[in-house]
Amino acid sequence: MKLLSLKNVISSEQFDREMLEELFELSDKMRSISIKDKTLHSKIMISLFYEPSTRTRFSFESAMIKMGGTVITTENAAQFSSGAKGENLEDTIRVISGYGDVIVIRHYIEGAAHIASEVSTIPVINAGDGAGEHPTQSLLDIYTIYKEIKKIDNFSIAMVGDLANGRTVRSLTKLIAKNCKNVEIIFVSPDNVKMKDDIKNFLREKNISFREERELKKVAKEVDIIYQTRIQRERFKSIEEYEKARGIYIIDKEILDVMKDNSIIMHPLPRVDEIALTVDHDKRAAYFRQAHNGLFVRMALLKVLLEEKS
Amino acid sequence: MKLLSLKNVISSEQFDREMLEELFELSDKMRSISIKDKTLHSKIMISLFYEPSTRTRFSFESAMIKMGGTVITTENAAQFSSGAKGENLEDTIRVISGYGDVIVIRHYIEGAAHIASEVSTIPVINAGDGAGEHPTQSLLDIYTIYKEIKKIDNFSIAMVGDLANGRTVRSLTKLIAKNCKNVEIIFVSPDNVKMKDDIKNFLREKNISFREERELKKVAKEVDIIYQTRIQRERFKSIEEYEKARGIYIIDKEILDVMKDNSIIMHPLPRVDEIALTVDHDKRAAYFRQAHNGLFVRMALLKVLLEEKS
Amino acid sequence: MKLLSLKNVISSEQFDREMLEELFELSDKMRSISIKDKTLHSKIMISLFYEPSTRTRFSFESAMIKMGGTVITTENAAQFSSGAKGENLEDTIRVISGYGDVIVIRHYIEGAAHIASEVSTIPVINAGDGAGEHPTQSLLDIYTIYKEIKKIDNFSIAMVGDLANGRTVRSLTKLIAKNCKNVEIIFVSPDNVKMKDDIKNFLREKNISFREERELKKVAKEVDIIYQTRIQRERFKSIEEYEKARGIYIIDKEILDVMKDNSIIMHPLPRVDEIALTVDHDKRAAYFRQAHNGLFVRMALLKVLLEEKS
Repeated sequence: MKLLSLKNVISSEQFDREMLEELFELSDKMRSISIKDKTLHSKIMISLFYEPSTRTRFSFESAMIKMGGTVITTENAAQFSSGAKGENLEDTIRVISGYGDVIVIRHYIEGAAHIASEVSTIPVINAGDGAGEHPTQSLLDIYTIYKEIKKIDNFSIAMVGDLANGRTVRSLTKLIAKNCKNVEIIFVSPDNVKMKDDIKNFLREKNISFREERELKKVAKEVDIIYQTRIQRERFKSIEEYEKARGIYIIDKEILDVMKDNSIIMHPLPRVDEIALTVDHDKRAAYFRQAHNGLFVRMALLKVLLEEKS
Repeated sequence: MKLLSLKNVISSEQFDREMLEELFELSDKMRSISIKDKTLHSKIMISLFYEPSTRTRFSFESAMIKMGGTVITTENAAQFSSGAKGENLEDTIRVISGYGDVIVIRHYIEGAAHIASEVSTIPVINAGDGAGEHPTQSLLDIYTIYKEIKKIDNFSIAMVGDLANGRTVRSLTKLIAKNCKNVEIIFVSPDNVKMKDDIKNFLREKNISFREERELKKVAKEVDIIYQTRIQRERFKSIEEYEKARGIYIIDKEILDVMKDNSIIMHPLPRVDEIALTVDHDKRAAYFRQAHNGLFVRMALLKVLLEEKS
Repeated sequence: MKLLSLKNVISSEQFDREMLEELFELSDKMRSISIKDKTLHSKIMISLFYEPSTRTRFSFESAMIKMGGTVITTENAAQFSSGAKGENLEDTIRVISGYGDVIVIRHYIEGAAHIASEVSTIPVINAGDGAGEHPTQSLLDIYTIYKEIKKIDNFSIAMVGDLANGRTVRSLTKLIAKNCKNVEIIFVSPDNVKMKDDIKNFLREKNISFREERELKKVAKEVDIIYQTRIQRERFKSIEEYEKARGIYIIDKEILDVMKDNSIIMHPLPRVDEIALTVDHDKRAAYFRQAHNGLFVRMALLKVLLEEKS
């Protein structure tokens, strides 16, 4: 398995098509572990969260425990940081990596996970580094596409919401652009939070078909996937502008009615009101399945990083 | 076992006499587990505490681990809530319930545990929901009565302290009223924090004998059980009134001297000074045994909720 | 083993030479546990941290898990304390000690661990009690000396930095004075934070050779061990004084160049800039090995306290 060459998981850009397919296969296998797989039974995962993200932390910790491993954890690692005692991250990681077998790090500074991986004696998984990456989110997103529409080629996807600042949509767009064939991407956003040029130029280089739209309803009827995200109040000059923008990007009954029967709605969660609660019961609402997929992808990655490689 | 019909533990009102007796028997069995019972060895408990309550959390987590299970935990779940990101509790529970086998939830809002149980795919145990319920506290209270006086009928109990606001005494009173025969309840409190009418009316409906008193010393000589609770300063108009009220409800040597030899003193803990430290060494001081009983009751409940039901 | 007489670990003064040697031997054995030792597989450690110290907590928790045990943990125990609810530490410990097999307590008040050990029904380990002790730090320090220079007699050591306020150097000095033969101690510090008289008088009583110096460079060339610590800004009247003092106590290339080839540099960590990063790659930089030794010392102590003693 090419996947076994992974030493750390810092960026979704470490994954090519072959590795993604291996990851999908392995994640699928993880779904059917009904009793504790003892594969990792002598292994310790260290959850090192410099900012709380209980959802992500729980997903990793549950994955580790379901593989038979154990966990030591902090929601409060910021005490290590330059604040109180002035220690650098490298020293922290050098010491901490003596206590376990894999570090899952969440940090508010871009690049922190990479720095950690350079001094750690054990594998490091990036669970989000500020404005940087959150690779397991992108990987569970593309795995969800694979599970839901049975392929990762030949599809159209609408990325909706705050595309300028959304780490999730930026990462997923790049991952798709690099690994999927014959896709069409439609960016749907208010004018003030349009997808940035770096990503659009990247798509042009890769010859990926994309266009930009302002109306979700118009796009909803044609795509296979709507990837919905939040629009945040603080990006707008006034409440009025915000309320106006937000209104036309909500997925509700009206949007559902025009969507294709075999299309799906994704969302990285948490949602606020950008998907109406009534949508939850529609079979096309894939976002809770998507969150659950994260568990299997993380189990697969832990297995790859921690199993004896011979 | 009728107890096996339980799907969640949200309110002590879910328990009738038959279920209580089954619970007592099962809790008794839990006392003698000397090595790890592997019953729950592939199960994960999720401690989801929206406000810290280390004592309660530790009791549940110890119970789970002693049954062979594992735990993922947060003391800090409030970050999920409507504050920062605006997610509703239902979404959180939908996602979280994919990560384990039982959720123990502590929330500051009454009704939160019930809401959680309605969307969760796994059992939910209420570990306190604001002004609402804390059913495992009531259950360990009544189990303690059973252990200490060998019966839950034919006894007299004095409920002492702030009866107007005390969740514990309100819940226990209702549980006793519904399930115990030939009991007498004496409410002992300052005038400004007397037991409220809803509970008194409930007792009248159930034909439970009760009366109200202001002097602990007078009552102490006649009852089988004193259930002591705190009186909080903020309920009183002035420090003087508070100090005066507090003084006459303290259990000390003087009260011990008039109590019956086979009576007991209970307290939900933590105590401040409403029980003098000198009382601790008296055999009638049951409050530390009471706290310890919580472990066995919680083990029993976890076993009931999590064991394969066939 | 004399070590088996230990019931709690509250102070490094509980350890004599014989017990230290037994501890070293047992810690050495812990290094080679490559798969989970099941020795403590039915045991629960309770991490009761009244102030966060993730590094120390992780070290203990990793030690426990590597022995096959499990952990329940709080970084946030201060909620128990006299603040919110007014409970005394004794009550907390009485209840908590029913939930596990050993308590590791970190508290901001000197003497807290001792108080805990007096009411606990299970062993207590002091993981730091304010200005008091942090015995496992001293024990890992002396174990590091043993591992690095293969003996704990016949050596010279420079204690450097804030010697007036440094708990670590004060404790280690006492431990050395009581248990090591033919040692020379050199205190190197600015005038305003010199080693206090109590320790110097203790050394005189024990006939331990010591002297005081102000220049690290002068001392560096002659000693077997430099034990470096931080100098804190708040001890100095002005930034200028602080900067001046700090500068002459930094270990850098210049200091390395004069040190003996088989000497070592220790530091309790975290460091700020009192050891230059370039020093890390020198074989004499023992501080990361020192931190790692803490794991083995803690494993050994847990084994001693928790294994059935027959």
